[in-house]
Amino acid sequence: MRLADRHCDKCTPETPTLSEPEIAEQLRQLDGWQPAKSDGHALITKTFRFKGFMPGVDLVNRIAALAESEGHHPDLKLTYGSLIVDLTTHAAGGVTENDLILAAKIDEDQAPKS
Amino acid sequence: MRLADRHCDKCTPETPTLSEPEIAEQLRQLDGWQPAKSDGHALITKTFRFKGFMPGVDLVNRIAALAESEGHHPDLKLTYGSLIVDLTTHAAGGVTENDLILAAKIDEDQAPKS
Repeated sequence: MRLADRHCDKCTPETPTLSEPEIAEQLRQLDGWQPAKSDGHALITKTFRFKGFMPGVDLVNRIAALAESEGHHPDLKLTYGSLIVDLTTHAAGGVTENDLILAAKIDEDQAPKS
Repeated sequence: MRLADRHCDKCTPETPTLSEPEIAEQLRQLDGWQPAKSDGHALITKTFRFKGFMPGVDLVNRIAALAESEGHHPDLKLTYGSLIVDLTTHAAGGVTENDLILAAKIDEDQAPKS
């Protein structure tokens, strides 16, 4: 099943984290997400760029709706002209399938509708 | 005039920045804002804490409305349970009265109404 069609499981300390090669392989299915580290924990990150401030606010609201629906929440850094979305599974201490699923849903939400 | 009743001027490279003692003095008028530095530039920062994610999203929207109204925009870091608001005047390379005015308006917006 496509990542964007799946749903996040509950995050627990036992949720399996992905290795760096597994993350790299999975990111090939996504659009513009990069692996990164913060405080020694793996995450995936994507930067959206805009003209102005409100397009980023609108995207925060769209992502928040997806995040609440899935019970899985990103870290968001909003500035004038950009929004950085970081995804990691804090409970598990790394990147899990839940992060990839939410990333895929964010991509799909942003994709031009045919 | 109270800071919260003033309006931000257009930010330019000539907008006067405040010294550290001036910032410290002005922050005494505000609620919970702290001086900080990022990449060598002075800023003022405040952390709001919540239960959950959506209260932070709601605050992003309220702050965005103030920011658009004033033509002056903060940097916002939203995570599950907290929102960090950073204010600086990028064009001037430091903290200006515009930052204090927007901070005061954010405080006033959050204050319990009598």
